[in-house]
Amino acid sequence: MTKLFMFEKPIGMRDTLPILYGAKMKVRHRMLQEIKSWGYQMIETPALEYYETVGEASAILNQQLFKLLDQQGRSLVLRPDMTAPIARVAASKLLKKRIPLRLSYSANVYRAQQREGGRPAEFEQIGIECIGNSTVSGDAESIALLVSTLKVAGLHQFKISVGHVGFIQELLVYALKSESEAEQCRKFLFEKNYVGYRNYVSSLKLPYDVEECLLSLLKMRGLEEVFQIAKTVVNNEAGKKAIGELEDLWVQLHEYDVQDYVSFDLSLISHMSYYTGILFEVYAGSVGSPIGNGGRYDNLLNQFGYQAPATGFGLVMDRLLEALGEIEEENDVICIMFSKEQRKEAISLAKEMRESGEAVVLQDIDGVSDVQAYVKSFTTVNYLVNVQEESK
Amino acid sequence: MTKLFMFEKPIGMRDTLPILYGAKMKVRHRMLQEIKSWGYQMIETPALEYYETVGEASAILNQQLFKLLDQQGRSLVLRPDMTAPIARVAASKLLKKRIPLRLSYSANVYRAQQREGGRPAEFEQIGIECIGNSTVSGDAESIALLVSTLKVAGLHQFKISVGHVGFIQELLVYALKSESEAEQCRKFLFEKNYVGYRNYVSSLKLPYDVEECLLSLLKMRGLEEVFQIAKTVVNNEAGKKAIGELEDLWVQLHEYDVQDYVSFDLSLISHMSYYTGILFEVYAGSVGSPIGNGGRYDNLLNQFGYQAPATGFGLVMDRLLEALGEIEEENDVICIMFSKEQRKEAISLAKEMRESGEAVVLQDIDGVSDVQAYVKSFTTVNYLVNVQEESK
Repeated sequence: MTKLFMFEKPIGMRDTLPILYGAKMKVRHRMLQEIKSWGYQMIETPALEYYETVGEASAILNQQLFKLLDQQGRSLVLRPDMTAPIARVAASKLLKKRIPLRLSYSANVYRAQQREGGRPAEFEQIGIECIGNSTVSGDAESIALLVSTLKVAGLHQFKISVGHVGFIQELLVYALKSESEAEQCRKFLFEKNYVGYRNYVSSLKLPYDVEECLLSLLKMRGLEEVFQIAKTVVNNEAGKKAIGELEDLWVQLHEYDVQDYVSFDLSLISHMSYYTGILFEVYAGSVGSPIGNGGRYDNLLNQFGYQAPATGFGLVMDRLLEALGEIEEENDVICIMFSKEQRKEAISLAKEMRESGEAVVLQDIDGVSDVQAYVKSFTTVNYLVNVQEESK
Repeated sequence: MTKLFMFEKPIGMRDTLPILYGAKMKVRHRMLQEIKSWGYQMIETPALEYYETVGEASAILNQQLFKLLDQQGRSLVLRPDMTAPIARVAASKLLKKRIPLRLSYSANVYRAQQREGGRPAEFEQIGIECIGNSTVSGDAESIALLVSTLKVAGLHQFKISVGHVGFIQELLVYALKSESEAEQCRKFLFEKNYVGYRNYVSSLKLPYDVEECLLSLLKMRGLEEVFQIAKTVVNNEAGKKAIGELEDLWVQLHEYDVQDYVSFDLSLISHMSYYTGILFEVYAGSVGSPIGNGGRYDNLLNQFGYQAPATGFGLVMDRLLEALGEIEEENDVICIMFSKEQRKEAISLAKEMRESGEAVVLQDIDGVSDVQAYVKSFTTVNYLVNVQEESK
């Protein structure tokens, strides 16, 4: 194997330098304040979990997991998402104290990337989980809080696309004979490859009405008018229940006054295999991938031995930052440059200025080889330099 | 292998539940504000680095590294500290823009633990690195900022023990013939096993004056009086330079008015093999291990192809929290419990209260199976519940 340059980083790994870090910190702080004001409590879980527990529950493809062995030979994974670890903690401890339980997080998650991909292998997610509330009010709260969180982050142009896993399942099961056909349809829809979906459906040589039913999914995008189309296509109990939930959600989203950010897309499928009901994705500006997604997952907790319904969302910080656009560099650090003789005075001055809220670098002139180059990076420089020192 | 319980976590891995998380977040925020006010810029580096680069530079024992292979078969490590990754970033990018460079971080680091140990395998460090300043003012700034950071964190009883790697090296090289003897001495001193050190030195059957010189190290603990003892023991150039630096440091620490938190211990040795000059450890209350440590490392950057001196410190957040003592639970979340008929009113009220700075949980009464148990966890509960609903 060729020797690495000392500067190299593993594939998909990135440094966050001060300017971006500062912007992220500011946005993160505002978002977490908002989430806190809705009564959600922050928790943190470890970066490493057992593959056998959280790894398998997490619904992220195996080849995307970073795996390693511990000293006992057990397989560990770097957490690929936060929903499964939070389900673990909730089921083992927190749900004994309070149901419904509202939790939130800001954490890095890890997904191994191929060299070609160019996607990050480590990225921050900020999100919430509301566990133990089976009513549509839980779904409405998730979406309303998502809107509020994005607004305080400074984002005003975004669109939340809402679907229902229960509805699409009913439709596929009704129309298709085999799970493998349904799986193939889901794959095309997940990839938003609608041409592929159409062609595949045609290739199945189904009766006309069945084919029409499958293709009608692609027309179920828009506002409340999609409910009418949906009702004519799937009219069994489970289908009606799903549509009823979406109708109820739509009423509640108006009560939260967030309806302008939402539209429906009943062909929506998520890669997160644990969703069971209402689900959604949020898109902003020219960012190609969704900046966040969420939904209802009523069976995940069960894997951790606790039957409880749940809803939640997660936002991908990098994509949100990308949607927010250009970052302004803050450069409000003052430099006090001192020579030894005036050091004590410089220390006092720096202390005073810091106490009044300024950011102050205190720099010994003997520690700088190129003073002119150094001071360029500050807007204000105070010299407390002895004259003999300066002229030497 | 036995099957795991779904709740199990890998050895040394922990969850941070809401109360501790809240306390940590508050303390962290204050510390980072203070560090920022000293002109340090936050950066973040990836959790995974190449073993060959940062892994080898990091000075953490091999058996403490979490290692895994990437898809190309390269060895990766979970970062065991932040100093080496920051040296990588500084050398590859940031030092081109500004020298001296002041960077800071708040990040989790990873060290594999044995089952017996009970020590955390993932823990948060907050720290700073000042790169490119060779003067003692760099060391003084590190210690002064350490004091300030601990004080804003709310800690008032702590002690910083200061030594000098250069001095101890001179003394050992002068007194002992072999590096293996010196290594053995360093090991005893690092473990603070002074009885072991004494016995080992006696066992070497050295000339009386040499033995005295080695044993005198244990007497060099206290305030400025240690400089006199040190000078009589090591009087070559390198030894004098080291003592001179400590004397200069002592003057500067008075100028910063932090001398009361500092004492000297010239037998101090760190496990961080990259330290080259003044180094220090900070202890607080009954916490057995140092809550932080730091020092000068003038050769580390060189491993990344850039010759630059550097100083810094890192604090272990868990130990600091332990030193801070009992955490008060904040329980200032208000609950608005609503029934469907009054949902719209409840949403408006919650919005209003959140805007005025309150944290408000908005809860559909239909989503709670045991209302009495649920409301117990709030100090204030507002019911907006329709009477028929309530009595049903």
